[in-house]
Amino acid sequence: MSVRIADTMLVIGAGLIGGSLALALRQRNLVSRVTGFARRREQLEQGIAAGVLDAAVDDLPAAIAEADIIVLGVPTLTVADYLRLVAEHRKPGSVVTDVASVKGEIAAMLVTTLGELPDWFVPGHPIAGSEQSGIAAANADLYVNHKVILTPAERTDSQALALIQRMWQAVGAEVVCMDIVAHDRILAATSHLPHALAFVLVDTLNNMPEQQRIFEFAAGGFRDFTRIASSHPVMWHDIMLSNKQAILDVLADFRGHLAQLEQAMQCDDGAAILAMFERAKAARDAFTRQLNNRQEETL
Amino acid sequence: MSVRIADTMLVIGAGLIGGSLALALRQRNLVSRVTGFARRREQLEQGIAAGVLDAAVDDLPAAIAEADIIVLGVPTLTVADYLRLVAEHRKPGSVVTDVASVKGEIAAMLVTTLGELPDWFVPGHPIAGSEQSGIAAANADLYVNHKVILTPAERTDSQALALIQRMWQAVGAEVVCMDIVAHDRILAATSHLPHALAFVLVDTLNNMPEQQRIFEFAAGGFRDFTRIASSHPVMWHDIMLSNKQAILDVLADFRGHLAQLEQAMQCDDGAAILAMFERAKAARDAFTRQLNNRQEETL
Repeated sequence: MSVRIADTMLVIGAGLIGGSLALALRQRNLVSRVTGFARRREQLEQGIAAGVLDAAVDDLPAAIAEADIIVLGVPTLTVADYLRLVAEHRKPGSVVTDVASVKGEIAAMLVTTLGELPDWFVPGHPIAGSEQSGIAAANADLYVNHKVILTPAERTDSQALALIQRMWQAVGAEVVCMDIVAHDRILAATSHLPHALAFVLVDTLNNMPEQQRIFEFAAGGFRDFTRIASSHPVMWHDIMLSNKQAILDVLADFRGHLAQLEQAMQCDDGAAILAMFERAKAARDAFTRQLNNRQEETL
Repeated sequence: MSVRIADTMLVIGAGLIGGSLALALRQRNLVSRVTGFARRREQLEQGIAAGVLDAAVDDLPAAIAEADIIVLGVPTLTVADYLRLVAEHRKPGSVVTDVASVKGEIAAMLVTTLGELPDWFVPGHPIAGSEQSGIAAANADLYVNHKVILTPAERTDSQALALIQRMWQAVGAEVVCMDIVAHDRILAATSHLPHALAFVLVDTLNNMPEQQRIFEFAAGGFRDFTRIASSHPVMWHDIMLSNKQAILDVLADFRGHLAQLEQAMQCDDGAAILAMFERAKAARDAFTRQLNNRQEETL
């Protein structure tokens, strides 16, 4: 009962995210052929070996011209450059989407380079991933029960939007449309700031004189808290720069709350510390219940 | 081939940590009888129902007088008070330990209240735990392959130290002795600061106007990063106050590194951002390898 999504899909920047999407679509027989392009050739060889890709692309313009669907899995700051190349070589009717974690900066770059947001481009962001990267970690179930945010513009073609929506739903995701500014602000809070804090914490500890003993005595809480500090440095560098203002805003807010805790500690204001921790625990416990409900819904 | 640890063990503050130890010792037949004291009576009923405790204690002085080993599982700031009660009622030859995450403040309080560190008291800290709390979550394998730090003083009785060492080893832990100041500084970095940051982050996000949508679009990275914000507020309140200086020191260090990231973002200094993220990823990846090696050693 599956409805075909496309004949040929091209993944530009074939890594964990694009590779997992390709694998999920192939396993469901929703695409006939997946080609992949990556700067690091061994990614493509691993992708072919893992059954994620049918072929590695050497001639990118030719592959763009052949593809019915193009997915950009490249770091945020290079999305607009690849879209310019896509605009030049794509065949009429092809639909293009990306998976970048920041949407405002890409839209702004497109207006600069192409004069406007192309109607065949559907900006997208799957809220799924892993601290792992690379196509060898591709997982056909990565998107099951996960949200995918699309941030279409007014001029985005409605059929293109419907196709990308259908594509993500077909691999198990829940698709939500959202305003670009809201997307970038929410993701700054839930994803970009936590990654920044994890990178900064590990860097801080790694610079302490007792660095070796520190990591030796770190346990489960530390392991979970810092897992995201193993994420892809270039990808996160791009996110920090391209969603700069939203991240700096929520970071300033965080710093204010941190200063409150420091001051409470300095003044031995136990009531203020306890009140903050109780509020945080209540909010985090509510989030856990919400997550559990989501998971039950899919059983 | 197991060597008995004690006839009667008393757990004061019977929750996750003390309960898991009791359960592990009972399952290995290393104690004959475990009694438990807790301010919340239902903890004791749950402990008896779960097979963790033999009996609930109403008359604490009498129970102290009967016990061969006493484990204090109470929050850090109350350890010294209970130790004073123990000093008054214990029988000669009994050995006492605690599991608090901060050691310096407890030693200081004991010097104030008892005039010196009792030679029958072996300060201890198992580096294991969970964001869960309560005796119902007790787990006999909680300490397998985990470190336990003991911070004995010069005057600590060597037989008492040897018994506590043997007790932890018997439930699968690796015991390490450490200087009190080093312990408090290392734990401030690997455990206390991460918990503070997680509580502060969740509290920050929970105060944002789009609070509801924020938690709705949070994914796996956020879940792992904030798991420890579900920890016991009173326990962590006590830790913040009792290890105040070491935590404020490492927090100041962290704030300095955070300011570097902010400045790099503000100045679009991509090289500085990338260098920091690459250093952090390398350190975190090395930590992952270290953890994996530890796990392999036990197979």
